[in-house]
Amino acid sequence: MKASVDTRLVATCGPVIIEDPAAVRPLKLRLFDFIRASGPVSRAGVARVLNISPGTVSTLTAELIETGLLQEVTDPRKPPVTPRGRPPVSLAVRPDAFVVAGIKLSSRDRTGILIDFAGNRLASVQRDFVPVEHTASAQIEAIGGMVTELLQKAGLSWVDLGGIGLGVPGFVQNATGHVHWSPVFAERSFDLSRLASDRLGVPVAVDNDANLVALAELWFGLGREKSNFAVVTIEQGVGFGMVLNHDLFRGANGYGVELGHTKVQVDGALCRCGQRGCLEAYLADYAIARDAAVALKLSEAHTPPIPELIEMLRAAADAGDETAASVYRQARRYLAAGLATVVNLFNPTLLILSGGRMRYDWLNADDLLHEMRDFAIDAGDDLPPLKIHEWGDLMWAHGAAALALSNVTETQLGLSREAVA
Amino acid sequence: MKASVDTRLVATCGPVIIEDPAAVRPLKLRLFDFIRASGPVSRAGVARVLNISPGTVSTLTAELIETGLLQEVTDPRKPPVTPRGRPPVSLAVRPDAFVVAGIKLSSRDRTGILIDFAGNRLASVQRDFVPVEHTASAQIEAIGGMVTELLQKAGLSWVDLGGIGLGVPGFVQNATGHVHWSPVFAERSFDLSRLASDRLGVPVAVDNDANLVALAELWFGLGREKSNFAVVTIEQGVGFGMVLNHDLFRGANGYGVELGHTKVQVDGALCRCGQRGCLEAYLADYAIARDAAVALKLSEAHTPPIPELIEMLRAAADAGDETAASVYRQARRYLAAGLATVVNLFNPTLLILSGGRMRYDWLNADDLLHEMRDFAIDAGDDLPPLKIHEWGDLMWAHGAAALALSNVTETQLGLSREAVA
Repeated sequence: MKASVDTRLVATCGPVIIEDPAAVRPLKLRLFDFIRASGPVSRAGVARVLNISPGTVSTLTAELIETGLLQEVTDPRKPPVTPRGRPPVSLAVRPDAFVVAGIKLSSRDRTGILIDFAGNRLASVQRDFVPVEHTASAQIEAIGGMVTELLQKAGLSWVDLGGIGLGVPGFVQNATGHVHWSPVFAERSFDLSRLASDRLGVPVAVDNDANLVALAELWFGLGREKSNFAVVTIEQGVGFGMVLNHDLFRGANGYGVELGHTKVQVDGALCRCGQRGCLEAYLADYAIARDAAVALKLSEAHTPPIPELIEMLRAAADAGDETAASVYRQARRYLAAGLATVVNLFNPTLLILSGGRMRYDWLNADDLLHEMRDFAIDAGDDLPPLKIHEWGDLMWAHGAAALALSNVTETQLGLSREAVA
Repeated sequence: MKASVDTRLVATCGPVIIEDPAAVRPLKLRLFDFIRASGPVSRAGVARVLNISPGTVSTLTAELIETGLLQEVTDPRKPPVTPRGRPPVSLAVRPDAFVVAGIKLSSRDRTGILIDFAGNRLASVQRDFVPVEHTASAQIEAIGGMVTELLQKAGLSWVDLGGIGLGVPGFVQNATGHVHWSPVFAERSFDLSRLASDRLGVPVAVDNDANLVALAELWFGLGREKSNFAVVTIEQGVGFGMVLNHDLFRGANGYGVELGHTKVQVDGALCRCGQRGCLEAYLADYAIARDAAVALKLSEAHTPPIPELIEMLRAAADAGDETAASVYRQARRYLAAGLATVVNLFNPTLLILSGGRMRYDWLNADDLLHEMRDFAIDAGDDLPPLKIHEWGDLMWAHGAAALALSNVTETQLGLSREAVA
């Protein structure tokens, strides 16, 4: 071998700049996250699980109690340590610490929810989307009106509101609140978070919709006790959220991670994004509809809108039409390949297919897991469990509210992340 | 909406067990990792970057100095804070803290390296693999002999050795040292780490080869200053290692993550693994060789061994054979699709194509980046930089040594991770 090559491998001792300190999640936040997710837990339990000293736990929890995020509770189910002693004291989040609103904007409607710090729903509202109000300022006005309505329903007012979480489709950077592009705004590349916070007078956090669903699962759903899980949504597109180490994984640039445009067929079917062979091009509503028009032998003039077309295809498949059924079979096969990619690359402890009501009637978890065996690597372990979690219509808004909770928590702890741009 | 659906979304307050506390990286280890990677750094700098209090930094660094892993150094380039004061004191790893060996087993040969705690090479050795010695005990004997030879070359003996890192191809679980399957062992499903540690009398850490290369980049290579990067290797197969938050990402089951068998063409070309459409089936040596035989119009009787076949194809392409060139073009296109999947799903700050000498003469970073634009999502950012890092023959052994360093460090800090099985 040549020494000139190998000398490059040896560590030199010059100073090196670590480029993204924001990637290091502060200890106090990890501690809070753990208590929030685990429910009432003793200080000793926190120290043991997080592998930090009891002294550090005492210091950090004292700060969190002082801030009003945590409270001490006694668990009547647990006996006192000594016969005449007090019941053991546990730590838990304070439900009344904050009230936050979550609002989801989509091309079809706007939904909103008001929750307390423990995730209890105080009010909800849903409005059809009126496509003319497309500018950022019109959207922000409408959001403000919706939040007012939510607060009134709950007998509260704006001074009671800790913050707003806003879910929007498209390319959105959570850390900066910057919208690169979204189908629900006329403008491109603007600071939605700052605009909305200035106008509404409360902190407004922004994220894309797939991340919201992962947050909803993390804070309130199936992922609450998991440190590591994947969420895939299938509706107008294919969404993907990944939780690693109890935290939403957003990638280095903060735009989040993307499964729908991962290539499952190099140079394959044309996708809305302009590229070819994306998972979404075989799986999303518009992809099913494309095949539906062919399978149902509809002439161009008679092709109905996408939701209706999908209903027709489903009805034909249920009535025994083999071609119609094959469209769903192919979609399921590609979905299995996409989920296998997630399993191969992230190896999560749980896969959640999360979606609004009635989207998954053509899927079941057993069939999918069976098909995934053709695609996922066999390392001697079983595939991770796959759960289909059908939320109600408020799924996305719940996720937006979880974002607000997360944001309010970080601000309260003085730990708001630095911009990563 | 139905209340019965939505009540599932609200947090209940029962206790929940967090299932994998080992996923939480201890603070002391993160602090050590940071100092190791950044080179000499002040306590104040550590506190600022890791977002922890100066008091905590002082406590933890005192323990690390006590353990012998860190030392205080004065940086003569920096002026004292006051005219008559001492030069500022920085923290750095102690090169003489440990000596470790890294051994890489492959189907072709065994390579070994001996390094100090700062990664300086003390000795190296390379042996052709004799395929008859396939049992675990024979392999361990041979490894012991190799380590003895390395120590003798460096004027050291076994008592000076802190540990051994062992890289093996196949499905290997680092946390438990369990080999599920490997082409270099006759046995299946056995505890290599325990067997080797018992026989050789020093701690032996085990990992698969792709993870080793990521570790080599993290400890000694291009990833030293990055918290977040991806490494892809292309040789007999396609390897993948991912560093997140300064730590190798091994997935929930500890077998590591897998790119080579991710599907880029559902139901496409047959792969060695028995599945179809894997990235590796378009990119690895055997895949190129499969097309080479066709492109070169070789009859069955005259097909030479794979390395020779690839040389012949390369020569034909260089001589202007368009069919031969198209084989490389297709491989590059699939590689671009695979790298785009990594970018879409992990959004790393750096992509490293890492490999042994002379493997990448058909690739260049600019062409690949250009082709990746057909496959990676455009969120308004540029693609991450792509670097082709051609190590010498000791690349894998260097990674194995980094594994040993990592293992020795964790053991010294009393922080060895719990098994995740």
